[in-house]
Amino acid sequence: MGDTGMETPGFAFRVLHRHGHARVGRLTTPHGDVETPAFVAVGTQATVKSLTPDDLVEVGTEIIFANTYHLYLRPGADVVAELGGLHEFMQWHRPIMTDSGGFQVFSLGASIEQGVGKIAPIFPGETPEIPTRRKPTEGRSLVEVTDEGVRFRSHLDGSRHWFTPEVAIRVQRQLGADIILAFDECTSPLHDYEYTRQAMERTHRWALRSLEAFHATRPQHGYPQALYGIVQGGAYEDLRRRSTRFIAELPFDGFAVGGSLGRTKADMWRVLEWTVPDLPPDKPRHLLGIGEVPDIFAAVERGVDTFDCVAPTRMARNAGLLARTLDGERLPRFRINMRNARFRRDPRPPVEGCACPTCRTYSRAYLHHLFRANELLAYRLATLHNLFFMNRLMADIRAALQEGTFEALKAHWLGP
Amino acid sequence: MGDTGMETPGFAFRVLHRHGHARVGRLTTPHGDVETPAFVAVGTQATVKSLTPDDLVEVGTEIIFANTYHLYLRPGADVVAELGGLHEFMQWHRPIMTDSGGFQVFSLGASIEQGVGKIAPIFPGETPEIPTRRKPTEGRSLVEVTDEGVRFRSHLDGSRHWFTPEVAIRVQRQLGADIILAFDECTSPLHDYEYTRQAMERTHRWALRSLEAFHATRPQHGYPQALYGIVQGGAYEDLRRRSTRFIAELPFDGFAVGGSLGRTKADMWRVLEWTVPDLPPDKPRHLLGIGEVPDIFAAVERGVDTFDCVAPTRMARNAGLLARTLDGERLPRFRINMRNARFRRDPRPPVEGCACPTCRTYSRAYLHHLFRANELLAYRLATLHNLFFMNRLMADIRAALQEGTFEALKAHWLGP
Repeated sequence: MGDTGMETPGFAFRVLHRHGHARVGRLTTPHGDVETPAFVAVGTQATVKSLTPDDLVEVGTEIIFANTYHLYLRPGADVVAELGGLHEFMQWHRPIMTDSGGFQVFSLGASIEQGVGKIAPIFPGETPEIPTRRKPTEGRSLVEVTDEGVRFRSHLDGSRHWFTPEVAIRVQRQLGADIILAFDECTSPLHDYEYTRQAMERTHRWALRSLEAFHATRPQHGYPQALYGIVQGGAYEDLRRRSTRFIAELPFDGFAVGGSLGRTKADMWRVLEWTVPDLPPDKPRHLLGIGEVPDIFAAVERGVDTFDCVAPTRMARNAGLLARTLDGERLPRFRINMRNARFRRDPRPPVEGCACPTCRTYSRAYLHHLFRANELLAYRLATLHNLFFMNRLMADIRAALQEGTFEALKAHWLGP
Repeated sequence: MGDTGMETPGFAFRVLHRHGHARVGRLTTPHGDVETPAFVAVGTQATVKSLTPDDLVEVGTEIIFANTYHLYLRPGADVVAELGGLHEFMQWHRPIMTDSGGFQVFSLGASIEQGVGKIAPIFPGETPEIPTRRKPTEGRSLVEVTDEGVRFRSHLDGSRHWFTPEVAIRVQRQLGADIILAFDECTSPLHDYEYTRQAMERTHRWALRSLEAFHATRPQHGYPQALYGIVQGGAYEDLRRRSTRFIAELPFDGFAVGGSLGRTKADMWRVLEWTVPDLPPDKPRHLLGIGEVPDIFAAVERGVDTFDCVAPTRMARNAGLLARTLDGERLPRFRINMRNARFRRDPRPPVEGCACPTCRTYSRAYLHHLFRANELLAYRLATLHNLFFMNRLMADIRAALQEGTFEALKAHWLGP
């Protein structure tokens, strides 16, 4: 399958069109194709919160992302494996990606163990995908990292666990996502150069061990899995360039850019410029945890193919509907707060002109009422809208890249 | 429309078949027909918690029930009216009933004002349909009841409100349900004979005023509304018989049995025997707030046509799936707790043999996981099942009545 980029039989990545560094592509997996650039909806606990798989199909989602750390702790990777893997377990029959567990081990594990960075759920009872507040420099000392692996505590019950590259691969074999990730140590903007360098070098050693473990194990659910490597190195140019060179040479099926992307959007753009151009041009590139509208445009034009992010679905549960709006200063904003009192009697669709199931059916007044009344249907209707919005945005970006109108589309969204 | 029972043009009730006191009928409303006996799903705040109208259609729901008290307080009956009435507001285009607000005024209003009977929501943030704990004898003295009406406080913000038969009719005209209820004073098993008698007599005077207000006002949304009277009288035979005689003589479109039905199932059956036989045979009969499986059978065979109850939907949010099960003593039970650890690895459908969207698609293990992980999808999948269950049970009861096999069906469900 050399001409289609990926190493593992059953997978392919075809670049259909290029526009500068940006690419329009098609990612083929055992569970179907994904048109890229694509947004990957996050379904942390084997469910995209409030939606069924049918809902996801209805709003155009082609691929979802689940979290290894969460599923390993609950219900347990062995349980998911017994039930036939993630696709069967959650009855989603399109592609799935899982992360390696690294990010949450270092964030959730650390923050709980410390009693700092207490996790603030969106509403009581909800399990967070990622902590909303972290102090990783403190956390680092309490999550025990050695070259062998990481010892951490469950954020659910404080039980002790041990993750290594081999464990991360074994668990992801059990879960059975189409695309799985190498185990990495995730650093934050609060980590200094020296620690970021050590963590990066550990991540490189773990990349080799992840590959080895991947090839030493077999898929468990009757279809192959692809393995992506992860570039680390924080917001330091020399580290990012070193990490890219190292990881890009390894026989991964695709590549993810992870870890700290700095503190500002400009930092993130620079990190992408230090990394993406040196990744193999014929393999897919994933950007971890990014999904705001300006970031999507910036990453697409720097050559990224897929993105996962909790923001659209989390924002929905906070009554935020994604929309192209202009605020008082004519700066683009991308969020309408449905709890706002001005919607109380507003008979218009939540976002005018939107063709999503929510906006085709209900009024702003009704959504406003559901949010004010804390009704479960509110979260679902807003989530449908936000995922439809993201999928539609990505489709528009793909079309614009094909038609050579990407810059015009970007100006329409972000202003000149 | 004399031959079809109801007083208001646009409505009809046809008894298609009788079996003892039980009837199979068809209730015609401006928003379509309801085959009876029917279960009326509760959508307190203009939403059946977690479901869309499409979901309700999918599980066979033909009619829903909304609460005037809740909607009057939030979003406000004027808001619902401005948006075109309840059907338009929530985009449910089949029949709707509303209560008069009386029940919640006396229960929620009282319990909040007192600081007793603190309302326990199913999960944090949820608004209860009814309080789970009440001390109405204490509450009574703080909700100010006079012959003119009731002064009460909002359970949301403590604001003061004033309800009368005329207000209840006006608000229900604004909300625009197909079937609306006369304003009544709702008593509980804790009220003594003397108070229950006074409240009943007040309810009778309010019934006359409700009828007068109904005829003095016009529907606001382009279709007629039908008005049901409510029989009160607690668990006292002479009061129930008096109340039935009084209310049954009034030109209502249908009749509801409300208030205290006693403390035991046997009490409830007796109350039905004192009331239902003396209601006009050609008009529909609704039993307020009843919906457990044995109660449904008991009420159907005593001549009740429709039932509303929060139990199936509330139980769903507590991980309880309705099912016909036999416990250790071979006594019928009707609930499976999906949080039970024995379901952790169970690949079978939640309720074997069930044709609902949830049981056709997902495993016990997945539902168990969703409930343990507090995932929003859990509430929805369980609610779909429980409403499908109720609608299927009612369809089976209708068929059994037609085929003369009602006793066999009852024995199948409840044991000999």
